[in-house]
Amino acid sequence: MRACLCHPVPHTPVWFMRQAGRSLPEYRAARGAGSILEAIADPALAAELTLQPVRRYGVDGAVLFSDIVVPLHAVGFGVDVEPGRGPVVAQPVRSMADIRRLRPFEPDDDAPYVGEAARLVVRELGGRVPLIGFAGAPFTVASYLVEGGPSRTFAKVKSLMHGNRAAWDELVDRLAGMAIASLAAQVRAGATVVQVFDSWAGSLSPDEYARFALPATARVLAAVAELGVPSILFGVGTGELLGLMASAGPQMVGIDWRVPLDEARRRVGVGRAVQGNLDPAVCLAPWEVVATEARTVLARAGTAPGHVFNLGHGVLPETDPGVLSALVELVHAEGRAGVELP
Amino acid sequence: MRACLCHPVPHTPVWFMRQAGRSLPEYRAARGAGSILEAIADPALAAELTLQPVRRYGVDGAVLFSDIVVPLHAVGFGVDVEPGRGPVVAQPVRSMADIRRLRPFEPDDDAPYVGEAARLVVRELGGRVPLIGFAGAPFTVASYLVEGGPSRTFAKVKSLMHGNRAAWDELVDRLAGMAIASLAAQVRAGATVVQVFDSWAGSLSPDEYARFALPATARVLAAVAELGVPSILFGVGTGELLGLMASAGPQMVGIDWRVPLDEARRRVGVGRAVQGNLDPAVCLAPWEVVATEARTVLARAGTAPGHVFNLGHGVLPETDPGVLSALVELVHAEGRAGVELP
Repeated sequence: MRACLCHPVPHTPVWFMRQAGRSLPEYRAARGAGSILEAIADPALAAELTLQPVRRYGVDGAVLFSDIVVPLHAVGFGVDVEPGRGPVVAQPVRSMADIRRLRPFEPDDDAPYVGEAARLVVRELGGRVPLIGFAGAPFTVASYLVEGGPSRTFAKVKSLMHGNRAAWDELVDRLAGMAIASLAAQVRAGATVVQVFDSWAGSLSPDEYARFALPATARVLAAVAELGVPSILFGVGTGELLGLMASAGPQMVGIDWRVPLDEARRRVGVGRAVQGNLDPAVCLAPWEVVATEARTVLARAGTAPGHVFNLGHGVLPETDPGVLSALVELVHAEGRAGVELP
Repeated sequence: MRACLCHPVPHTPVWFMRQAGRSLPEYRAARGAGSILEAIADPALAAELTLQPVRRYGVDGAVLFSDIVVPLHAVGFGVDVEPGRGPVVAQPVRSMADIRRLRPFEPDDDAPYVGEAARLVVRELGGRVPLIGFAGAPFTVASYLVEGGPSRTFAKVKSLMHGNRAAWDELVDRLAGMAIASLAAQVRAGATVVQVFDSWAGSLSPDEYARFALPATARVLAAVAELGVPSILFGVGTGELLGLMASAGPQMVGIDWRVPLDEARRRVGVGRAVQGNLDPAVCLAPWEVVATEARTVLARAGTAPGHVFNLGHGVLPETDPGVLSALVELVHAEGRAGVELP
């Protein structure tokens, strides 16, 4: 929490995107055969999956076990999460009529299980580490809705934004509303910081990001600020967008591994924190390589306050949990960004 | 050719990556039901597919209809190209023994059809436009060999480079040799400029690119220079790598749509040309949007010599060929980079 706000800290904090996931044997045991959306809808199970990595790794944040498509699923839009593929949409958005099928998200009625899981986690954490809530940014969620699933070219979603501005604005406006409702519910349930995932923003040129993605994301971040909690804005391949992302108003910007962290801090600007940025694939290398690369991240983070150590994207399923435990120890022992001297 | 060398030109030249492809009805008619590797192995068909977009669009370059995995296929490594997916490898590289299965590529014996197709094209072109040869850069070809197919995380290939430096060096050394042999054969057959596709280099951090990809690519580019023809080095998501890519020694660097072209020229540096960088997805938008975006590319290219207009990646199959024809006209009429005043 303090690092998010560029305040001094007792040690460099660390958590891992997708720390609750298939890399953990206890996760695979607890999840069983059900779908991910079923697991999310079971508050006791979702809370347990959220807490597992906190217990094992001693990370400084618990991230709610959930998915960015939960609000879409909960309003009955017809979305599923396919193992190994990602979100898929039964009837992709093609027209204004499809967009009108996106009714407002009422978390307490449509997905009460999210708040229940969050409350269980917060009770168990007892204030030792914060619960991180999250939502998808309007552009990234729209990309799934329009493409119908994961995409390499983002051709359909770019066609829509360039070809039908009115439809695009309506779409991202509704998605911003859903993200705001979802984040507000998570904060009411005890999340004290939130991350907005604009994972695929890096597919956009800076001009496109500024015109088609930033305004709706800025609306979400402004609403989070009204809730009184800090926010993190994250995407991959965003090297050219970091200044724009900072201007959207988050307290912290998530950085992937492509931009050295010292350069990322320059682009994000003074007064905003950064999160990252070890390549998740590096965690599959021998430990001495992982340690060297992690030390490079810490060195580039420098000593100014405002760094949370994380990977540049989610933990890969084939990651050895022992490597992540050792990484947490290393970061706590050697990180120097904003660390108060005794 | 002149723009590649930063010399003055009569008009800004233009061609499109994957201009010979599914976007053209005459391509779909000529290709029939055979596989892409079968079409490449038929010199008359490959020559026809190469020439179709030159006739239709009036582009300033013919790019040989081929694929970066042709040398691997020709030495019997067991690689295929799946429609809509890309290269897939029957037995991915896991060990030094697999790497030793990569025997040297002898183009005249292993794939004589490539040279035959190139000679047919050059005869038909009669010197009106250059034939562009190409090969895959060692890292990008290695990524297919190690991952077994297209990848989103590049986890296996990064594991190998970080975990077994000797094996990695042997792998990219052999792939560099294959690329050099392939490019030399294409130049002997009449190609007068070559593009080296390091399409997935942007998945690497600058440190990783400098250590694991650049040296073998530089070796390929040095060999091309020995052949006396200029080279283009291309990848997507390479914003942080452009200076390093320029230092690898190409005459021209291909830029995707993520980096504004004026900024790209700064990163590439004085004396090296740039190619790009309209987003292929923009070509699916209404014409006025395409025209506006193309004019932005031309404006950012400036008036200094050394710009070849292209898309930031390959033509998407759903592109209307009429849009590409109109783009060629617009670029020829309005491009100003290095254009000699009458």
